[in-house]
Amino acid sequence: MPLAGISIHPVAGLPEFAPGDDLAAAIAGAAPWLADGDVVVVTSKVVSKVEGRLVHVEPGTDREAARQRAIDAETVRVVARRGPLKIVETRQGWVVAAAGIDASNVPGDALVLLPADADASARGLRARLRELLGVTVGVVVSDTFGRTWREGLTDVAVGSAGVPALIDHRGDVDVHGNRLETTQVALVDELAAAADLVKGKLGGLPVAVVRGLTVTAPAEDTGTRPLVRLGPGDLFRYGSRDLVGSRAPAADLVPRPGELDAVAEAFRVAGAALPEFPVVVRYGGEDDGVVDIHLPERATTTTALNLGALIGAVVVQLHAEGWTTRWEPVGTPGGTSLVGRLWLGSPPD
Amino acid sequence: MPLAGISIHPVAGLPEFAPGDDLAAAIAGAAPWLADGDVVVVTSKVVSKVEGRLVHVEPGTDREAARQRAIDAETVRVVARRGPLKIVETRQGWVVAAAGIDASNVPGDALVLLPADADASARGLRARLRELLGVTVGVVVSDTFGRTWREGLTDVAVGSAGVPALIDHRGDVDVHGNRLETTQVALVDELAAAADLVKGKLGGLPVAVVRGLTVTAPAEDTGTRPLVRLGPGDLFRYGSRDLVGSRAPAADLVPRPGELDAVAEAFRVAGAALPEFPVVVRYGGEDDGVVDIHLPERATTTTALNLGALIGAVVVQLHAEGWTTRWEPVGTPGGTSLVGRLWLGSPPD
Repeated sequence: MPLAGISIHPVAGLPEFAPGDDLAAAIAGAAPWLADGDVVVVTSKVVSKVEGRLVHVEPGTDREAARQRAIDAETVRVVARRGPLKIVETRQGWVVAAAGIDASNVPGDALVLLPADADASARGLRARLRELLGVTVGVVVSDTFGRTWREGLTDVAVGSAGVPALIDHRGDVDVHGNRLETTQVALVDELAAAADLVKGKLGGLPVAVVRGLTVTAPAEDTGTRPLVRLGPGDLFRYGSRDLVGSRAPAADLVPRPGELDAVAEAFRVAGAALPEFPVVVRYGGEDDGVVDIHLPERATTTTALNLGALIGAVVVQLHAEGWTTRWEPVGTPGGTSLVGRLWLGSPPD
Repeated sequence: MPLAGISIHPVAGLPEFAPGDDLAAAIAGAAPWLADGDVVVVTSKVVSKVEGRLVHVEPGTDREAARQRAIDAETVRVVARRGPLKIVETRQGWVVAAAGIDASNVPGDALVLLPADADASARGLRARLRELLGVTVGVVVSDTFGRTWREGLTDVAVGSAGVPALIDHRGDVDVHGNRLETTQVALVDELAAAADLVKGKLGGLPVAVVRGLTVTAPAEDTGTRPLVRLGPGDLFRYGSRDLVGSRAPAADLVPRPGELDAVAEAFRVAGAALPEFPVVVRYGGEDDGVVDIHLPERATTTTALNLGALIGAVVVQLHAEGWTTRWEPVGTPGGTSLVGRLWLGSPPD
């Protein structure tokens, strides 16, 4: 009698993919044994390739500079930065190093972006596999992510269809009568990790099939969106003190005038967090990566201390966001309304 | 012809475990089919139970207070805190909510701690299964952790034996001749996640077996230690701004005099990060959760601003570490060497 359980099978014999290729047809051809209830886990890289999510790097140009430009283009927010490493929030809502952009397993002149909408890609694959083979399968699009406090990478889901992203055990009762309060299992991430056990990292095995799960497709298929944790649930919106102190010398400042909204936000946050240091600040002159900081009144030493507290909090926050700063006192706070200038710059890329 | 791949099998029929039970014998009895090369994935909770890593809560006492005390006892550092949620670094080096302490799947009067040394537990299980069944298996001890920026939980490894924690692809070359620079796969975490696909969360299936991997036991078995990322590699040593501003009213301050070394460290970090605001600060009077802040000289308004910057940076840092602060100006900085008092307290548990 065979043992109960699940099995995970590689899909062998797939070709190299290029933009416009029919990925579903290739999978159907290589895995005609697909059956109802199987979950097909596809490495995001092949999805990106067939969808043309590639950035070609001209021969002779600076590949690393092109990579950094591609990262910036996919980024809505830099979460942390150290040297060439950037951890960013992507347009899809994932927080990942280098915006998930990869340069391995592609010809030397290309960078591979994450699929623009991998949930849609998964839905498309699922529908096409049903057409081609008459089977109803789940699809997970996987990518390889790092973790905050654990070395090593694991595969997680960046897209899915026909499989619930989360299984909600909240409210269930265990055998001792205790209610499980907080257990939501990220099923699609565990599927991605499991499939990676057979896929390997050196290419040629970008697809695996998980068989034997009893999973019910969700009534409304929201793909991987339930996994996105941003906003109020995010306790780690910025990297912390290891980034503070990694500033480049002031001479290396590379001002980016277009990004100066960050300063207004930093003052707002600092002011809300430090109500015991009340001071009203005006700032202006943001055209060249410089913020002039004025006090609306001639300052006492107490006002100066309060203003200092605000500036200290702002500078720490800007550093945590990857900014470089240089503070240039212009006059003593008691002597003029213009207190000083905060020079801003992103670290050199 | 059967499909290539791996399989994952639940180990059914295991009993409830209690301190002193022989877990290896129970697994051997329930899974006599174990074979060389299998990886046995065991939920940490049953390891903790047989090892007596339980905290009994007396009937009639405050269960939540007992839970918070148990968390504190397992904690070497609070990473982030919001309301009753604490994300901490445990003595084992894991960063996890509530120090990995769980109250589900145990009788109502107990809390389950993480195993004291789950790598040693895994080595013990591996050796005993070899004695009992004559098989050489890998062992992974798993627990359920949250992730920083993804909703839902996945199982990860907190202990292992006979399986490499990381598979190192660095330096390997892909089919296009590109060198893989950074890919280290956290194999034991992917094994834990894969096993959870068959184990479920409601108890009764705490063990699963992964069969068909070709894994070579490491020459020197360091268990899960290579997964621990702390110190310089940790970009997220503290939670960030969502914690700032969550302070309790000053009246609720609960000073903890023994913890005031944090202030010295906060001033050291702030001073190093803000060299453009040079000021020498003395502080003292730390006996009652109060830090008196003196300037060594009569201050100008510039000194006051610089001191303020330092205090602002310190306060932000303390807030990020979960401290509550209250700033009490004592004199104007220009008028006295005692500038003010910083009252400190941990938020009420």
